[in-house]
Amino acid sequence: MRTIDWNNENSTIVMIDQTLLPVEYKVIECDNIASLTEAISSLRVRGAPALGAAGGFGIALAATLSSASYMEKLLDELRRIGNVIKATRPTAVNLAWGVDRVLDAARDAYDTDSIQSIVLAEAKAIANEDVELNKRLGAHGAALLEDGDTVMTHCNAGRMACVDWGTALGVVRSAIEAGKEIKVIACETRPLNQGGRITAWELMEDSIPVTLITDSMSAHVMQQGMVDSVIVGADCITQDAVFNKIGTYTHSIVAKEHEIPFYVAAPVSTFDFERMEDQVEIEQRDADELRYIANCQIAPLDVPVYNPAFDATPMENVTAVITENGIFRPPFLLDEVRIAQ
Amino acid sequence: MRTIDWNNENSTIVMIDQTLLPVEYKVIECDNIASLTEAISSLRVRGAPALGAAGGFGIALAATLSSASYMEKLLDELRRIGNVIKATRPTAVNLAWGVDRVLDAARDAYDTDSIQSIVLAEAKAIANEDVELNKRLGAHGAALLEDGDTVMTHCNAGRMACVDWGTALGVVRSAIEAGKEIKVIACETRPLNQGGRITAWELMEDSIPVTLITDSMSAHVMQQGMVDSVIVGADCITQDAVFNKIGTYTHSIVAKEHEIPFYVAAPVSTFDFERMEDQVEIEQRDADELRYIANCQIAPLDVPVYNPAFDATPMENVTAVITENGIFRPPFLLDEVRIAQ
Repeated sequence: MRTIDWNNENSTIVMIDQTLLPVEYKVIECDNIASLTEAISSLRVRGAPALGAAGGFGIALAATLSSASYMEKLLDELRRIGNVIKATRPTAVNLAWGVDRVLDAARDAYDTDSIQSIVLAEAKAIANEDVELNKRLGAHGAALLEDGDTVMTHCNAGRMACVDWGTALGVVRSAIEAGKEIKVIACETRPLNQGGRITAWELMEDSIPVTLITDSMSAHVMQQGMVDSVIVGADCITQDAVFNKIGTYTHSIVAKEHEIPFYVAAPVSTFDFERMEDQVEIEQRDADELRYIANCQIAPLDVPVYNPAFDATPMENVTAVITENGIFRPPFLLDEVRIAQ
Repeated sequence: MRTIDWNNENSTIVMIDQTLLPVEYKVIECDNIASLTEAISSLRVRGAPALGAAGGFGIALAATLSSASYMEKLLDELRRIGNVIKATRPTAVNLAWGVDRVLDAARDAYDTDSIQSIVLAEAKAIANEDVELNKRLGAHGAALLEDGDTVMTHCNAGRMACVDWGTALGVVRSAIEAGKEIKVIACETRPLNQGGRITAWELMEDSIPVTLITDSMSAHVMQQGMVDSVIVGADCITQDAVFNKIGTYTHSIVAKEHEIPFYVAAPVSTFDFERMEDQVEIEQRDADELRYIANCQIAPLDVPVYNPAFDATPMENVTAVITENGIFRPPFLLDEVRIAQ
């Protein structure tokens, strides 16, 4: 199933609970707004594209549940609930974008029934477009992989961060769909272990061969000839750098040392056309992420910790950026990517 | 206190239980051979130099406990117990070396009482020599550090792997003793987290400023100008490569990229004068080390794992090797180090 979807049978939102992976695979159903906002704030659903769909489906759910008897009352209610949903993760741009896009579509309605059908159709469109975009991106990227290749990846830029298919892992899926045999080496991705917990799990689910390594092994596996290319996702791409999960920059340097292509797979929506690397502030996260894992203490409780969420890979370390609009090899202007649309 | 030591008051072996760190600091006392072999096989004491001392003190303990009434009977008993101690970690070269050195010394005895005093003196000599050696190594290395430097390290090449002082961390201690202000960045060192558990703990114990990072952050902290040099230990040094904890090779490449000195601190006993890199087999460890941490599951139970214990850093990535005989900058012949003695 998709990471998040609409259940037509009983008009609810269904999603894979990502907090339980890999210990337990559980599909949860949200039949009210409180259960949806709890799922968003607890990271049961995460990843920018998946949150866009969550925002859209949230408004559709609110419309379905409403007993408002006339249009203006229903629209007021949806706007109010939209603000509640957005407030659950105020910095998640895509969540707010999904809510607003569906609310905007509701303007074309002529009665309460048509509001319900329009917002549901728009929410489904957001989800479907995300999958189509990833498949276009994947098809472009698949051309870069040879039959028999092993791809190293970091963190989770897979279907579990999107509605389906994925970006970095979408490229792998598209290459396999095109008949190529592709293996993946997944870096566990400390400190939150998205590679070990989510990437390993989703690839095994799809019977794609995956081997788990620690992040520090990347140079060693390259030295041993075990890696043909690296593909990672991105949180933000400026003209001069790629911001992605901490550790990405390290992998880019060791890939260069071993003359292994280093690809970044990301939709155009990831591009920041305004700022340069030195204008992007890197989020510092809680020290306890390095002191505990799950509930196990793994370092002195009072040890000082440096815990940036992202690092910046200079664009010259990137072999190519794979987008839904095609493949771009540095040096290129970000605007060229927009124009290629 | 030292990692392992002899308690003169009641003739027992005392050691810091390293399996409990960093959650609990506990000194355990071995007053019989069974408790010593249990401590060795459970890794309550670990690290090549510390195991050398454990072997020596084990024979001293056996001599103290013995009720043998004549010399030959006592020597037979010590040889038998020596074999039991060696068998607890059959591949630990230093453990057997410590046992044999003390047994050899007993040959000079003339009665049972003199056996007891000779083996105890020899065991104490092993421990003292290890500390002296590390201090000589540390003094050489300290000259490479400037007042105010931050040193990045990987794994634990500290006093907890030795009797005291340490190799890589011994250099830091010597520089501080010489009046320099030195800070340490400790990489947590997946998968067994010796950096987070042991290095962080022992530095905090000695009030040496330490900051814990994930292994994948090494390039980022260098890019941010936070690192002045890298110092690591070694498990084996051949003419062409340094074998050390997995991840060391990655750090050596990113240090080179940022033009940061990369030092290896290791006693001459670490040198392999016979073999070259391609003749050294790298130990593969249990897959569960990446699937669990403590008792917490952190990856799918059946995920394939690649888990080499060590990697090989080519000698050209090393700025200098710091030994008790001085500092050696590649290219150099290993034999030059032996001659420098």
